Amino acid sequence: MTERAIEWVHDGGRDGRGVLRILDQTVLPLTTTYLDLDTVDGLVEAIDALAVRGAPALGVAGALGVVVALDEGERSGWDAARLDREIDRVRHARPTAVNLAWGVDQVRGLLPQGREAVLRAGLEVAAADEAANRELSRLAADWLLARTGRDRLRVLTHCNAGLLATSGWGTALGVVRELHERGAVEFVYADETRPLLQGARLTAWELAAEGIPHAVQVDGAAASTILRGLVDCAVVGADRIAANGDVANKIGTLGVALACHEAGIPLLVAAPWSTVDLAMADGSGIEIEERSGAEVTTWAGIRTTPEATPGFNPAFDVTPARFVAAVVTERGVVEPSAGHTLAEDPSVPA
Amino acid sequence: MTERAIEWVHDGGRDGRGVLRILDQTVLPLTTTYLDLDTVDGLVEAIDALAVRGAPALGVAGALGVVVALDEGERSGWDAARLDREIDRVRHARPTAVNLAWGVDQVRGLLPQGREAVLRAGLEVAAADEAANRELSRLAADWLLARTGRDRLRVLTHCNAGLLATSGWGTALGVVRELHERGAVEFVYADETRPLLQGARLTAWELAAEGIPHAVQVDGAAASTILRGLVDCAVVGADRIAANGDVANKIGTLGVALACHEAGIPLLVAAPWSTVDLAMADGSGIEIEERSGAEVTTWAGIRTTPEATPGFNPAFDVTPARFVAAVVTERGVVEPSAGHTLAEDPSVPA
Repeated sequence: MTERAIEWVHDGGRDGRGVLRILDQTVLPLTTTYLDLDTVDGLVEAIDALAVRGAPALGVAGALGVVVALDEGERSGWDAARLDREIDRVRHARPTAVNLAWGVDQVRGLLPQGREAVLRAGLEVAAADEAANRELSRLAADWLLARTGRDRLRVLTHCNAGLLATSGWGTALGVVRELHERGAVEFVYADETRPLLQGARLTAWELAAEGIPHAVQVDGAAASTILRGLVDCAVVGADRIAANGDVANKIGTLGVALACHEAGIPLLVAAPWSTVDLAMADGSGIEIEERSGAEVTTWAGIRTTPEATPGFNPAFDVTPARFVAAVVTERGVVEPSAGHTLAEDPSVPA
Repeated sequence: MTERAIEWVHDGGRDGRGVLRILDQTVLPLTTTYLDLDTVDGLVEAIDALAVRGAPALGVAGALGVVVALDEGERSGWDAARLDREIDRVRHARPTAVNLAWGVDQVRGLLPQGREAVLRAGLEVAAADEAANRELSRLAADWLLARTGRDRLRVLTHCNAGLLATSGWGTALGVVRELHERGAVEFVYADETRPLLQGARLTAWELAAEGIPHAVQVDGAAASTILRGLVDCAVVGADRIAANGDVANKIGTLGVALACHEAGIPLLVAAPWSTVDLAMADGSGIEIEERSGAEVTTWAGIRTTPEATPGFNPAFDVTPARFVAAVVTERGVVEPSAGHTLAEDPSVPA
């Protein structure tokens, strides 16, 4: 599987200087289409439509988005103030994911050194993301096998935190991929993840491509699957992790967490360190993006509710730290439900 | 609003002897279509497709389904053994709902007294259902207002336990309707209830018709809506209630229950006494209907997952009694989470 959710194509674009190419995730799994983005408008629109999504991939989109803005600015004759405003539009294209701003900030300081320096730094963000994912996947697999005491795991996952959500390999699904390489995956239950079905469309697409045994279930089935003892753990990604271990992730994660807590099985959150926001003491300060109600009330253009019925569509929820057994980043494992915080220097367990 | 989910039309049918008419709930809210059923095959198919659904309505379908079988048997010259087998097919058309069998058993003993006696008993089942719903709605509204200490309630509901699920008025949604008549509903969050969207399609249709302020949310949002303090209580129906207060209801109810427990707000289960199965000591013995995975993996005929991905589709979950603040039937209020069981004679609180 060589698809990448997001990459810089060096010889692409209208002037041959390169272009930001994303795999359009709004039409998977039925259609594989790539979008070549060379304007801020196009990039912001793609981010808003979730053509590119997933916290780590958004970090890369932020970093390489600065190059897109630079190139467009050069073509269009923007002054420094205009360029700054356009970069800010990329930085704030979605409110909850900390990685988008983080990605922008990784490279923005290099603007005085010129385009090539910014581009190189953006590519490094992408390469570092994949390396981080592989490392955190190893750490998480070790932790899960030790914690559950099992050789083969039955895993529940929610949304998509796979290679499609990152520059490569994946976080939550990277953990599953790592377990699978060790022969340690028995079965994966993937929540379909309404309203946009990232689980049904994207996670299932990745699991099918890897040949990992799996099924898709409705989100409402998660609690029952967990409490019936059908899984040994749940593994999810994160959009923002507060210093105390509170985790913002796709709407529905909180329900998975409550059920894991009740069943006494671990909920593991897998995310790159860039997702950790130490400036945020706890989850109460995390802004929850509320998306269009039409995502809930229509399906493939067909209205599912009466015309008069509005949709309520918060995109994320916040899982309190006490329900999070482990946060695994490339820096190591932190166990929030055991009272540890991200502000402590996480260290790899012996 | 005069629609009925199920009724006997006395002058209908191919021989003018009457016909069982159901409102086809598979095509609501876009289309209002009635199905006139005068064969066991047609009735079993309608039950299986969920054209008629909801535990109390299935009780009526069971009772009046015996008349359908009788009439078809007379037309087709069935002997007593064949008639018995056909009635059993109605009785077992769906495994989890106790009401279907209950409805059949309410009238089956009258077969020796002839068709009119059976029909009369079936109509009494329907009339008694609506009367029970109105009574339990009053009791539940009283209990909720007393328990929460509020004048106006913000309510979360899951699936559809409205008039569409009964012979009239509704159970969970009957409670909401009763509260609304008292001016005591501030807002209703209706879970869309995947895979078949009974919340988005049916509950929203009923709420819109009553002019009750509401929104539809994805099932994954329920835990967050509850823990953010946006609702004062959750009200759901039931498909089967064990003697200890364990409740089988639409998949996703368990997640609502866990969140209510965590938030310290009551989960109220509203159902007619016919839903109570005292022969079932607890929920561990309740058979969970597993429906076709295609309900999960396709939507409006469009595949949402890769072809290779199966759907896992349990239709119900079982909520342990300790998470159920109240079971309200027409006989009164029982509080399972406070240690009371259905086997005690429920009495209306003073």
